[in-house]
Amino acid sequence: SSSTTPIKATLFPGDGIGPEIAESVKQVFTAADVSIDWDEHYVATEIDPRTNSFLTWESLQSVLKNRVGLKGPMATPIGKGHRSLNLTLRKELNLYANVRPCYSLPGYKTRYDDVDLVTIRENTEGEYSGLEHQVVKGVVESLKIITRTASMRVAEYAFLYAKTHGRKKVSAIHKANIMQKTDGLFLQCCKEVSEKYPEIYYEEVVIDNCCMMLVKNPALFDVLVMPNLYGDIISDLCAGLVGGLGLTPSCNIGEDGIALAEAVHGSAPDIAGKNLANPTALLLSGVMMLRHLKLNKQAEQIHSAIINTIAEGKYRTADLGGTSTTTEFTKAICDHL
Amino acid sequence: SSSTTPIKATLFPGDGIGPEIAESVKQVFTAADVSIDWDEHYVATEIDPRTNSFLTWESLQSVLKNRVGLKGPMATPIGKGHRSLNLTLRKELNLYANVRPCYSLPGYKTRYDDVDLVTIRENTEGEYSGLEHQVVKGVVESLKIITRTASMRVAEYAFLYAKTHGRKKVSAIHKANIMQKTDGLFLQCCKEVSEKYPEIYYEEVVIDNCCMMLVKNPALFDVLVMPNLYGDIISDLCAGLVGGLGLTPSCNIGEDGIALAEAVHGSAPDIAGKNLANPTALLLSGVMMLRHLKLNKQAEQIHSAIINTIAEGKYRTADLGGTSTTTEFTKAICDHL
Ligand SMILES: CC(C)[C@H](C(=O)O)[C@@H](O)C(=O)O
Ligand SMILES: CC(C)[C@H](C(=O)O)[C@@H](O)C(=O)O
Repeated sequence: SSSTTPIKATLFPGDGIGPEIAESVKQVFTAADVSIDWDEHYVATEIDPRTNSFLTWESLQSVLKNRVGLKGPMATPIGKGHRSLNLTLRKELNLYANVRPCYSLPGYKTRYDDVDLVTIRENTEGEYSGLEHQVVKGVVESLKIITRTASMRVAEYAFLYAKTHGRKKVSAIHKANIMQKTDGLFLQCCKEVSEKYPEIYYEEVVIDNCCMMLVKNPALFDVLVMPNLYGDIISDLCAGLVGGLGLTPSCNIGEDGIALAEAVHGSAPDIAGKNLANPTALLLSGVMMLRHLKLNKQAEQIHSAIINTIAEGKYRTADLGGTSTTTEFTKAICDHL
Repeated sequence: SSSTTPIKATLFPGDGIGPEIAESVKQVFTAADVSIDWDEHYVATEIDPRTNSFLTWESLQSVLKNRVGLKGPMATPIGKGHRSLNLTLRKELNLYANVRPCYSLPGYKTRYDDVDLVTIRENTEGEYSGLEHQVVKGVVESLKIITRTASMRVAEYAFLYAKTHGRKKVSAIHKANIMQKTDGLFLQCCKEVSEKYPEIYYEEVVIDNCCMMLVKNPALFDVLVMPNLYGDIISDLCAGLVGGLGLTPSCNIGEDGIALAEAVHGSAPDIAGKNLANPTALLLSGVMMLRHLKLNKQAEQIHSAIINTIAEGKYRTADLGGTSTTTEFTKAICDHL
């Protein structure tokens, strides 16, 4: 409640629609009596040589100090020689696990009504190593790096998550029939960790088969853990099942309890500043942040208010087929609190 | 008709349910008066040192000589030190493009009723290079190799396919925002080829976004061309949209007009020999083989007979919710001819 000392959290509104949806989060949190002291950081207009990106050193330090944050969309400015903002955050803050719960929203109809799964993506290595070479003209190679350290870390996280969230099954997604060494090592780590969790069913599913099963019957899945690129692909596929990235939250987990919740949709420059953006993904990401802070009661209240507002259908933004502005939708959520 | 000289074609019935579904193809082809002289080859029980796989040298020579073939499922026997049968065929025969048309079957209901697309997968390199190393203990790497030669070849094939099949759009699927050199080269080749086909709309779609769009609205897509692993993943996802690999055909295209049509589902050892297998994927692959041989009239007749049999719904195998045996389903198709 408002009488407690405010918790300091970093806020990256991001660009495009970012500031509008961040404003929505602030209003909803205030209405729910969540006392957060937001430490706001914007994307810089010049490259910070200390990070070699448009993300400043001070921004990184803020997350390291507060240990918790919320991030809107950041479009990486075009140009060579600097790093993507998202990748800079992941690598510099060692955000090793990207967690994306994905569930059918009651009242928001898609082709699927029985989705309730969580993708846990290794977030630091694999196909995202950045190591690429031209071998000879017309022949290029990219290196996929899998380490035991990063694989164990994300596997431990996935099983701990499954256990603490009452989940029954962990599926490790791979292509070890082709990449026996890299994906093989990843699987070996998952298997090793699984042995410490006899109460959780463990299975290994080849990625192509996984995608086919996901579109046929997503209810088969519970928690999925996988290397970086497969996580990138499958988390978007799963978001598509329930309506898209505008509706699905995510949270990045780092060492020593750092958590950066994040809306993973784009910055939608075409509708920026027009009060049309849907803040749902950032709001639900904010809920994940609150759960991380163990503010479970307020997290549940806000979560219900969002879900109920969408389910009622009276106030919906244009992307969900409605005519509400961002502020009208936000107010409707606040009224549900 | 039966009066023409039979065309010689290699047939790999494969194992598990392979021989039963291959028998179904032979019967349907005979009923349609297609005159094929099948040159049958089975998977060997010992490794042939000339291929380092269970696929014999004679089998490979047969395809090279006949230039056309049909392949059932082959389960790669477990054990180290030899190559997967599927990969041996692709590499030794230089089957550079894997073509998988994927469309909603009238009368067979899934969550999607508007799928009509074709995935064209680079089939020889990329993540399937087989190059993997342990860098130090606990750190392994896989190499993804992209060449201009293979990328141009598959891009040329995709655009030619689009043109000759009356398709309007080619989407190149990639992750060049992360793998700028490898996927960047692939895109550059697609773009280069696209300039020779001004009548075909060309677009580039990031793989994660592609998967999200595919599950939300597959009607957005027409022809998709992509590197090996993305093709593996997306072709299975697409098959899932219309019912699974038991219903979708495929054809591998090699240099100098070689074509090996193939059912890409598994060998289903649990139901092998029980007259329960669904021959649809192999039958439709056979239809692709006939089209390749320019036997378009018979191809259309057989295609319609298969589609109509499934649509009527009286004779369906167990995987499609029916109670027919393989032979009953096959006879129903023959009766439709
Ligand atoms: C923008 C891009 C680099 C990023 C990724 O590939 O990880 C995005 O797709 C995501 O999933 O956060
Ligand atoms: C069996 C496996 C090696 C193969 C592949 O990955 O290419 C299969 O999934 C396919 O798509 O034909």
